Amino acid sequence: MAVTSHDVARLAGVSQPTVSRALRPDSPVSARTRERVRKAAETLGYVPSELGRSLATRSTRQIAMVADLENPLYPRLVGPLHDAFAAEGFRMVLLAEREERLDEVTRLFDGSVDGAVLTTSQLLSPLPGELQRRGIPFVQLNRVSELVEADSVTADNAAGGRAVAALLAGAGHRTIGAVLGPRETSSARERERGFRAGLRAAGITLPARQVVRGWFSYAVGYDGLHRLLSAPEPPTAVFCINDIVAVGALNAARERGLAVPGDLTVVGFDDLDIASWPVFDLTTVRIDFAAMARRAAELLLRRLGSPDAAPVHERFPVEPVLRRTHAER
Amino acid sequence: MAVTSHDVARLAGVSQPTVSRALRPDSPVSARTRERVRKAAETLGYVPSELGRSLATRSTRQIAMVADLENPLYPRLVGPLHDAFAAEGFRMVLLAEREERLDEVTRLFDGSVDGAVLTTSQLLSPLPGELQRRGIPFVQLNRVSELVEADSVTADNAAGGRAVAALLAGAGHRTIGAVLGPRETSSARERERGFRAGLRAAGITLPARQVVRGWFSYAVGYDGLHRLLSAPEPPTAVFCINDIVAVGALNAARERGLAVPGDLTVVGFDDLDIASWPVFDLTTVRIDFAAMARRAAELLLRRLGSPDAAPVHERFPVEPVLRRTHAER
Repeated sequence: MAVTSHDVARLAGVSQPTVSRALRPDSPVSARTRERVRKAAETLGYVPSELGRSLATRSTRQIAMVADLENPLYPRLVGPLHDAFAAEGFRMVLLAEREERLDEVTRLFDGSVDGAVLTTSQLLSPLPGELQRRGIPFVQLNRVSELVEADSVTADNAAGGRAVAALLAGAGHRTIGAVLGPRETSSARERERGFRAGLRAAGITLPARQVVRGWFSYAVGYDGLHRLLSAPEPPTAVFCINDIVAVGALNAARERGLAVPGDLTVVGFDDLDIASWPVFDLTTVRIDFAAMARRAAELLLRRLGSPDAAPVHERFPVEPVLRRTHAER
Repeated sequence: MAVTSHDVARLAGVSQPTVSRALRPDSPVSARTRERVRKAAETLGYVPSELGRSLATRSTRQIAMVADLENPLYPRLVGPLHDAFAAEGFRMVLLAEREERLDEVTRLFDGSVDGAVLTTSQLLSPLPGELQRRGIPFVQLNRVSELVEADSVTADNAAGGRAVAALLAGAGHRTIGAVLGPRETSSARERERGFRAGLRAAGITLPARQVVRGWFSYAVGYDGLHRLLSAPEPPTAVFCINDIVAVGALNAARERGLAVPGDLTVVGFDDLDIASWPVFDLTTVRIDFAAMARRAAELLLRRLGSPDAAPVHERFPVEPVLRRTHAER
């Protein structure tokens, strides 16, 4: 039998409504009564029903995280988000957005969450606009849609792309390849834009035959490198759109018997833990995803309290991390 | 303004209670009315409030996953669990259990979930017993507590441990080391038990100085291998309690300039994706975590319907995967 607030009321010698009030931190009850009720609740192992509380306050105390559970970035975001929300008494509901399936995330509209963190927005995603139309607060983390003006936390991807181009050009590389990401995501597009701008500034062209493009995955980097290196004039350096793609490329290089960086320079983006492992020792661009996730949680919780404040766009700086997969040409 | 069931009622020309009934699949409404209400709801973009439905049905349609978000196994379990529950109309709430902090998971008791999947149980965890006492259905996945009789889905870890011992003994290794896992978890303990039994059967001892023990992490494997190899008579083969520990060991071997498997045999456990990457090509033991997760979801959903059925214990077979980190002594 579940313990109810009536049991607590009986033990504490107060009325049931008093129990409800006493267990809500901000309601007017004397300290003595609150303490008596708290002790009774503890003795009985009573936990207030969140369902009842939701009805009373119209808050669900739940936040949805819309995520791509297969993305290697996901584990870097989920922990900090969970902890930031838990610290404020919010639970996190997980909604997987595999592709552009709006039906899956339609549940965001059923009143079961107070707000959402979107980590999978594509430039033309319908979801952010739909949330906005329905007045459901959200923040975009890491990637953004072009169709809405809303709170967002992103990294300075373009600056990172430019830094990689400058690094490769400065090391004397002239035939440069790239395994780029999906055009539909702002993160991949900005990295690419910065990278191309940096190459142009150094007077280096990036012909289409030296570009491979695909989703942010190991397989794309692995297959991509094999393809780039099968060209008549293969590149001496390859920029990979993120670390997991770079790790795929490094594995392909290993299979081809190529020494990195002796025969080939490879540079990634993100600085996942794996980048620092001795077998990879990957030169990359660091993004502080934990800080970004915490900031996104803050923005969303603030937004719950002031739905009409002007949208905030935070862009976190990035930092090249020079390890051992790049060398002079 | 959010669309309400009253708006739908007006458009469909029916009463509000009829709207609620019509949108619940199992309630008695004529097909014609149901269709009319469905169309009106679609036109207005109405999604029934989950909160209202919860109160009407006493079901929250939410399942909690209690997980260690830092564990490399977590991404392997979360996707299949999410999808299995989503297919049945259940959301998944994420509760991080960093250590044995019962306060964090106390929220399981507040009526906001119908049941829970526990993936972090330790042998003496108080949580499963507490859930049982409160009548909250749960299933244990991958690891189990010793203190309760409840539905569980685990791998045949002991058989895997024996298989690794047989492999190493069969390849002529006699000085064997091990980086073992936490004694508090059933998975690590069973792997160790099987491994020790297999060595004993082959007449090989595993002295304490050839054993390192720690949590399931890269760092434990990395530090552990350095320590094992600093001994006067270092092992020629090392069993690692899981793949991420083995990957840490392989990185340490690389730093020491050791050829694997020429100079050293390393074997892991789990067969994570990373094990098959060419730079590692790790010999390991395969566990079908996706199938286990799906099965756990099934058992839990079944349990919601029949709370008093006898507990089911499913043990999935494991399979050695012979790649290229093991060799004859």
